[in-house]
Amino acid sequence: MTASFAEYRELAKSLGVDALALVPGPNFTRALGQGFMSHERPFVLVIPAQGAPAAIVPNLELGSWGLVDFDGAVFDWRDQHGYQAAFAALASHMPMTRLAVEGQVMRVFVHHALKQASPELEIIDAEKQISGLRMIKSEADIAAMQKAIALSERALHRVLATVEIGQSEKEIESRLIQALFAEGADDLAFSPIVVAGDNSARVHGHARADYFIQSGDALLFDFGARKDGFCADITRTVFVGEVSDEGRAVYETVLAANMAGLAATRAGVSAHQIDDVVTGVLETSAFAAHIETKTGHGLGRDVHEAPYIMRGNPQLLPAGTVYTNEPGLYLSGKFGVRIEDDVLITEEGCQVLTQFPKELTIVGA
Amino acid sequence: MTASFAEYRELAKSLGVDALALVPGPNFTRALGQGFMSHERPFVLVIPAQGAPAAIVPNLELGSWGLVDFDGAVFDWRDQHGYQAAFAALASHMPMTRLAVEGQVMRVFVHHALKQASPELEIIDAEKQISGLRMIKSEADIAAMQKAIALSERALHRVLATVEIGQSEKEIESRLIQALFAEGADDLAFSPIVVAGDNSARVHGHARADYFIQSGDALLFDFGARKDGFCADITRTVFVGEVSDEGRAVYETVLAANMAGLAATRAGVSAHQIDDVVTGVLETSAFAAHIETKTGHGLGRDVHEAPYIMRGNPQLLPAGTVYTNEPGLYLSGKFGVRIEDDVLITEEGCQVLTQFPKELTIVGA
Repeated sequence: MTASFAEYRELAKSLGVDALALVPGPNFTRALGQGFMSHERPFVLVIPAQGAPAAIVPNLELGSWGLVDFDGAVFDWRDQHGYQAAFAALASHMPMTRLAVEGQVMRVFVHHALKQASPELEIIDAEKQISGLRMIKSEADIAAMQKAIALSERALHRVLATVEIGQSEKEIESRLIQALFAEGADDLAFSPIVVAGDNSARVHGHARADYFIQSGDALLFDFGARKDGFCADITRTVFVGEVSDEGRAVYETVLAANMAGLAATRAGVSAHQIDDVVTGVLETSAFAAHIETKTGHGLGRDVHEAPYIMRGNPQLLPAGTVYTNEPGLYLSGKFGVRIEDDVLITEEGCQVLTQFPKELTIVGA
Repeated sequence: MTASFAEYRELAKSLGVDALALVPGPNFTRALGQGFMSHERPFVLVIPAQGAPAAIVPNLELGSWGLVDFDGAVFDWRDQHGYQAAFAALASHMPMTRLAVEGQVMRVFVHHALKQASPELEIIDAEKQISGLRMIKSEADIAAMQKAIALSERALHRVLATVEIGQSEKEIESRLIQALFAEGADDLAFSPIVVAGDNSARVHGHARADYFIQSGDALLFDFGARKDGFCADITRTVFVGEVSDEGRAVYETVLAANMAGLAATRAGVSAHQIDDVVTGVLETSAFAAHIETKTGHGLGRDVHEAPYIMRGNPQLLPAGTVYTNEPGLYLSGKFGVRIEDDVLITEEGCQVLTQFPKELTIVGA
């Protein structure tokens, strides 16, 4: 599992920095082959363009750190003594003037500790470049994602078979989570969204304990497992008991946008182009006023990662990229529909990794 | 649920800053009465010492934001246009020279966006003071924690009743998680630690799929549910099939340290004093070489929060504080024992919120 640091060193060189600093999160796990806890404790892996790496490690993580194949200096520290001395020791061991960090992962207190140890240090946010190393997936990465997706889909099948009018959103959400772990999830990729009725019109709504699903409701599931370090991210919207003509029309529009995006996907198209096709279908429908989101995002060790599939992003998408195709329409106060597939880009087109049916489905009738 | 911003304004005044900035996490949820997703999107609540608050809100969170009672300016932004214009608009709407942030929650990319919009802005890490507002728990807070603890303990009882020699750590961990949700957890307070044998000697070990528990193993569970926004954090160590004399001696030493800490707890003692008593018991035992951690940490909306119960921390602990009393001994390569209670400090002493038995227990025999 342990990745070589070679590509991180090369990136440091190409960014013109002395080193990259990684903190617990997807890149850290990828670089070391194992995840770690951090909480209130700074924990930093520093990979220089030249020379041996170094790490600042909380002493109570040393037991797990010992399982990692790491040939570099370790500056450990204990809660009782604080962490600043470890940062000072790192600064003196490895003098740096420019350091690239993951801006969406590193927290401000670590940034401050680095600056306190080296006031002249220039800290550059290279989130895009560092996380960008994960964009093209290996066969092993894809196999892990397929496992995560397959078990997530089995969990949704289980739950849909038991949905009944009168259950609360929260109760259905809890059963979905239990089913994910029963099917073999290592973890949740993110806190699931299980929302019905007017709540489904909130893009990131929160399940309610006091709303009980009714006939005619849209019922939206946006969820996924994590397995072997990789995420699934799937959305399906079903209807409870019956569906109105408007519900059906919205559903068919969203599905058409999703399908158009799949048809437009192949290696070499840009993120802009895919979103332009998908959003174009929504914009030319009767529901253009209810667009709230872009087409989707990259998927891998993190549930949201590069590339972001949106207009204005000229990035050309290589084979091996996995992205979410998740158009939606959100009729505030009424209902929302989102359909989300996980899509592997290939030279010829794409392989849709999600296999859960997308035909309009009525449950709990 | 929605807290008034009054105490945040007062804190801003006492810190001598123009405003506090909160981002999704425990303080944000407490201030607004509801949690939010953030991922790759900056989402910032700014509470000034004087005047109306303001917020930077990703457009796809506006549906959920509408449920919050918020009387201030909202600068929303869409993925396709980026967030920097929202930061610029905030800077021009509310000019600031000093801003206090939660250094352990805010990420570097938000810090950079604030600085880009206001290059002269001084950003101060006031994690301790901002999160310190949560230290004394209300009756409602304690009731939520008691629910989280009670359901976590029911889940552990369920799992222990089914533990058998030959099960993997990972399999037991998965059943624990399923039991937590079946018992009513809203979420996990943190990714549980379920480790046996030599792995239990790693403070933050990771469950292995390829290690099958054997007779004589220590089996350590460190876990907890989140309920109504509050965390449980419980550790119990049991033995599988049988226990060695050394295992028993280590267990009794750790339990004695835990009990001594409880006896020393009352309003007005310092964090230093409690750790000194607890660690003192371990230090005067035959196992002094195997101490890896301090006594514990505060517990509430976050699983690790102030006060940190360690030597060198002179903080006096008021009634209403909840902390974890979690001494442990870690015999590298052999086994570890940790026993963790959640403790509410009262004027007269303490109320131990965890009720799971602490007598040495043998399972799977």
